[in-house]
Amino acid sequence: MRRVIATAVAACFATLATADEGMWQPAQLPAIAGQLKQRGLELDPSRLTDLTGPTMGAVVSIGGCTASFVSAQALVVTNHHCAYGAIQYNSTAEKNLIKDGFLARSQADELPGDPNQRVYVTDEIRDITREIVGRIDPKVGGLERYNAIDKAQKAAVAKCEKPGIKCDVYNFHGGYSFQLVRQREIKDVRLVYAPPSAIGKFGGDVDNWMWPRHTGDFSFLRAYVAKDGSSRPYAKDNVPFKPKHVLPVNAAGLEAGDFVMVAGYPGRTNRYRLAEEARDAIEWQYPTNIRWYEEILGIINRAGAQDPAVAVKYASGVAGYNNYLKNFRGQLEGLTKARAVAVKAAKEDALTQWLQAQGGETAVLAGNIVELRGVLAQQRAVRDRDLVLGYLNRTGLYNSAYQIYRTAIERTKPDLQREQGFQTRDEAKIEGTLKQWERRMDPAVDRELFVHFLRGYVKLPAEQRIAALDTWLGAAAGDDAALVRQVDALYAATTLTRVEERLKWFKATRSEIEAADDAGLKFMVALMPELLAIEQARKQRTGDELRLRPRYMQAMIAYNLSLNQPVYPDANSSLRVTFGQVQGFKKDGAEFTPFTSGDGIVAKTTGKAPFDTPENEYKALVARDYGSYASGKSGALPVNFLADLDITGGNSGSPALDAQGRLVGLAFDGNWDSISGDWIFDTKLTRSIQVDVRYMLWVMDKIDGAQNLLREMGVAR
Amino acid sequence: MRRVIATAVAACFATLATADEGMWQPAQLPAIAGQLKQRGLELDPSRLTDLTGPTMGAVVSIGGCTASFVSAQALVVTNHHCAYGAIQYNSTAEKNLIKDGFLARSQADELPGDPNQRVYVTDEIRDITREIVGRIDPKVGGLERYNAIDKAQKAAVAKCEKPGIKCDVYNFHGGYSFQLVRQREIKDVRLVYAPPSAIGKFGGDVDNWMWPRHTGDFSFLRAYVAKDGSSRPYAKDNVPFKPKHVLPVNAAGLEAGDFVMVAGYPGRTNRYRLAEEARDAIEWQYPTNIRWYEEILGIINRAGAQDPAVAVKYASGVAGYNNYLKNFRGQLEGLTKARAVAVKAAKEDALTQWLQAQGGETAVLAGNIVELRGVLAQQRAVRDRDLVLGYLNRTGLYNSAYQIYRTAIERTKPDLQREQGFQTRDEAKIEGTLKQWERRMDPAVDRELFVHFLRGYVKLPAEQRIAALDTWLGAAAGDDAALVRQVDALYAATTLTRVEERLKWFKATRSEIEAADDAGLKFMVALMPELLAIEQARKQRTGDELRLRPRYMQAMIAYNLSLNQPVYPDANSSLRVTFGQVQGFKKDGAEFTPFTSGDGIVAKTTGKAPFDTPENEYKALVARDYGSYASGKSGALPVNFLADLDITGGNSGSPALDAQGRLVGLAFDGNWDSISGDWIFDTKLTRSIQVDVRYMLWVMDKIDGAQNLLREMGVAR
Repeated sequence: MRRVIATAVAACFATLATADEGMWQPAQLPAIAGQLKQRGLELDPSRLTDLTGPTMGAVVSIGGCTASFVSAQALVVTNHHCAYGAIQYNSTAEKNLIKDGFLARSQADELPGDPNQRVYVTDEIRDITREIVGRIDPKVGGLERYNAIDKAQKAAVAKCEKPGIKCDVYNFHGGYSFQLVRQREIKDVRLVYAPPSAIGKFGGDVDNWMWPRHTGDFSFLRAYVAKDGSSRPYAKDNVPFKPKHVLPVNAAGLEAGDFVMVAGYPGRTNRYRLAEEARDAIEWQYPTNIRWYEEILGIINRAGAQDPAVAVKYASGVAGYNNYLKNFRGQLEGLTKARAVAVKAAKEDALTQWLQAQGGETAVLAGNIVELRGVLAQQRAVRDRDLVLGYLNRTGLYNSAYQIYRTAIERTKPDLQREQGFQTRDEAKIEGTLKQWERRMDPAVDRELFVHFLRGYVKLPAEQRIAALDTWLGAAAGDDAALVRQVDALYAATTLTRVEERLKWFKATRSEIEAADDAGLKFMVALMPELLAIEQARKQRTGDELRLRPRYMQAMIAYNLSLNQPVYPDANSSLRVTFGQVQGFKKDGAEFTPFTSGDGIVAKTTGKAPFDTPENEYKALVARDYGSYASGKSGALPVNFLADLDITGGNSGSPALDAQGRLVGLAFDGNWDSISGDWIFDTKLTRSIQVDVRYMLWVMDKIDGAQNLLREMGVAR
Repeated sequence: MRRVIATAVAACFATLATADEGMWQPAQLPAIAGQLKQRGLELDPSRLTDLTGPTMGAVVSIGGCTASFVSAQALVVTNHHCAYGAIQYNSTAEKNLIKDGFLARSQADELPGDPNQRVYVTDEIRDITREIVGRIDPKVGGLERYNAIDKAQKAAVAKCEKPGIKCDVYNFHGGYSFQLVRQREIKDVRLVYAPPSAIGKFGGDVDNWMWPRHTGDFSFLRAYVAKDGSSRPYAKDNVPFKPKHVLPVNAAGLEAGDFVMVAGYPGRTNRYRLAEEARDAIEWQYPTNIRWYEEILGIINRAGAQDPAVAVKYASGVAGYNNYLKNFRGQLEGLTKARAVAVKAAKEDALTQWLQAQGGETAVLAGNIVELRGVLAQQRAVRDRDLVLGYLNRTGLYNSAYQIYRTAIERTKPDLQREQGFQTRDEAKIEGTLKQWERRMDPAVDRELFVHFLRGYVKLPAEQRIAALDTWLGAAAGDDAALVRQVDALYAATTLTRVEERLKWFKATRSEIEAADDAGLKFMVALMPELLAIEQARKQRTGDELRLRPRYMQAMIAYNLSLNQPVYPDANSSLRVTFGQVQGFKKDGAEFTPFTSGDGIVAKTTGKAPFDTPENEYKALVARDYGSYASGKSGALPVNFLADLDITGGNSGSPALDAQGRLVGLAFDGNWDSISGDWIFDTKLTRSIQVDVRYMLWVMDKIDGAQNLLREMGVAR
């Protein structure tokens, strides 16, 4: 069946009018070579399949974002908002790098990133579907399928990994195929340069997801390794990594209509979800999370208004909540406007009819869809409880207690039998998180959030309650003042709000933790048996889904191919390529042109955040002091540009590349209409937003005096 | 000096490149006839100076909004948001005309508007500057000038008014000239037709002040008089007024680039204010009122969420607060962006230098500007107190008590010595307001607002406190719980929250009120002496301003003329004409085209307010069932259009007229950039937004079945 898809993809693309929808796996590109050439690609598409070759070899993941090497000394360029954690980690109320920006004049001045900051350099992607599911009876679902897949994944990873090499199994099409991705893991990542937030975050949450846009969303990091070239956490005498390939910079940039492509690590899309999943998203998921996010932001902002140190601690969290809040609202608006449920339902009906018309074995697939709906109903029955547990796990106390105790439990097993995420390979990351809470948690705010989430818990219906949590709450479950007192007492009697105690307990054994006199650990020890039971039930459902979703996707793929519609897997944080051209979009009463310019920054400037252009930049823009960075065509200084590329969260920081694979900008956002593109892609309206390389270079040269980096990138003039 | 202005206006306009800035007095139009012709006006401009003639005779004020006669049976067209009071007045939680819309199938079905609803037909505007200030010594300011002007104004009004005729004196250029405006006052105004709010308020507060826009902001009223033709409040046997002129309808509408003009009653602009007044607006006025409005909305919305009847009562108020809130934010943003303080300060410096260069008497004017700044400083010293008093006066209780007692006080004087606003001529309006509170006040919400405003009062510095209010508050001034109890007690012991009691007390004499045992009246009786003293001090300052502002304006006018810049008075709610053309505007990264269409409504529809297009409209738009209402040029159904007209609040409902004076739409809003146009007009960005006549007719014909009105307007097909 997979061969059918591969050939059919090539066939179907010859007839597609627009090709801009699609997050292509690098291996798919030769099959659509004609389309790529026609759009203007000058490179041989097969070159893009070589993950260690000149273009793809320079594109890296930094965990949740994409970045790329732009110098032989491992200078890495990504978005300002992707480096935000590193900037925040080095900021205090007194020395505010977020506000003021930062530039290291030499490598010695570069600042360590937070302990979990990584650069991952992909060097192999290999299909291992047969290894993972080849021996499982197609009729087997539930825990048996879950455990078989889990075991096979862990074995594949264990076989692949070695010091400094990280391997992961990615699931495509909901379990239809599996790929093993091998990445070099660089653990010492330093902050090199970030413009002030009035440039890097210009427009802030007001302009987020909006066009016209004028954000200088770029920053530079550097990847360091031990002198012998091996991966090593931050150490003063580490040396810059030597990347095999770096992206050349095309300082002349692009103009409207030019070919452009983006390579990166898109996180997640829902293009193939069922109608009822869209309905759940509209009726429950987005509105519920919007409400929770608003409440969380209320709590954090009130505390931050009173204490700047708290504001700094939660700045990254607040930025994330605001970003997702706006995203959720956009999803909700877009899905509702697009009448997504009706559209998806019609497609499902058509699919079912088509399957039945095909007859034979194909018709069996229609029955699998019905079964899949049953699994979704089971998930729906416990979703409110799972949501509350998820929110509780966002508090520093709950999360630390959980990570510490769960790791200790898993350590009692052989490594390959330990839960994924709690194996030996994961321990450094968990330790990093336990450290990181120090700079991201204020115990008073954490306690208030804990109370808030428990208030959500006590409203759950009886069948979704957790007996141990009810026992712990006692009368406080029905008495809000008592609930507050109970949580106050919990925080007063735990040491887990202190970093040295968290790290000490992380070394403890299971029995030491179970005997501990710490209120936070006692709380978690009491809860854990039920949390594990909940996890088992979830695995059972996931196992069923892993049987049924691939069958649904098998049917959907065949049906889409019959309609000549593009077939590419939903985003799953694996490396993808999307291509198209620089272009704007039209709405009724407005035409959005593909470039913004320095004049637009002047026009938006109010002097107050988020439109508080630095005075030296404002003056240079008013004087139109563009140096050699103006557009050859318009004479303006290009700031951001639109393209009809198919990106989503995780693509942030991705290099935008010209027809020859040279860097011409960084993807950092999409327009408002692109948000619901995660579910339904609209080629007329969905646009990605990139910061233009000319604006980056101009800011570095004229505003922030980063000539050292320009020279290093080979673009000094 | 006035003659100089008139001739200089004509001279200067011959050289102006764009003429779109300017709210022209009708009498000024012949002086700019060349410009009007060049822009495309086909009528003789002098016709527009005849206020009782074919075009201007059909344009009427409805108090705060503009409207026009469109049938011989006195059918009046205006904005939906201008008829909102009448729609709300007839709405209850059960019969919600706001939501469902309303159409009278015959005149018998038409609904009475609220008691204060009026139609004012202007029939004369006459300059009476000499009468008002001719005999006042130019050096006299303060109370003496204030009282002299006040007396002369009242005398002029008294001489002019008779039953059914309302006269008002308008002050131009801050007291530089005065005009007497005579209007026929029609007191029985009925609701004829309003589309559902999903059409009339489509886009709601989200789209307010925004483009692209898709709001069907139109409604119809009808003016009724007694059978003998005299003005009479609502009575069942009143008959439709017979207007001398009605606007013909151009059902073909306009296209991009066409000439368009708007006649109406713009309320207030600040084009000639001092730099420090712009600074006060930025630093105090807008931010302070934004905060108060947000707090007021918080109180009202919380109460409305719990009780739909409360929501209906405050719907009009909430709409107003939201509108101004967005407006204030726009003002603040626009003024800051435009660096208005620096721009105005530079202009003042240039003016001062120019004045000094002129030498002689002209140079004296420079000294007057310095004196004017002194008066502004005095106002600034008490502005926080005056603001709090203004807010208290927004509560039904305070306002009713004040109106009742103040009227009784004024009634003890001869009519011409009574305070303006409290003369015999004003009593019907005051009584209307006392009635109206019944439908617009919920005592519990009113009480909460009262508490809230007092909380603002107790924060005032000592020098701005009111002794009687401090005495009334007692210990409650420093104890919030006591303050709440005090206000609770006030509301418990007053009858003024009941309409019949308000109307009863409105008939009482001053001594009856002063002897009353009603807590609300006692409160006001205690406060009044100080309120009157505050008023005297204000009059003193206003008298100084009335001496100095005209001198400043005299200088500014002469200076502007020397620069060939347009000279027209700031808006003051008097009749004005603005002309220009149908055109969009450009911003960096976007070009806003001048028309929106039915397709845009479909694209914006989410099914949820404010984008909840009625299902029958949605279907007709999807089917593109445009009948004969599509644009001849684009084939689309035009919904709203942009023009480079100079309008502001008060212009709402103004007829947009083609080159022959035919109705082609209704002005209802401006784009975001137009908001701060009240202070600084930017010809590149400031645009008015009109609802297109073709959309109005299409909705009436295809959606709401208002063929009776189409026939009446002579546009039935």
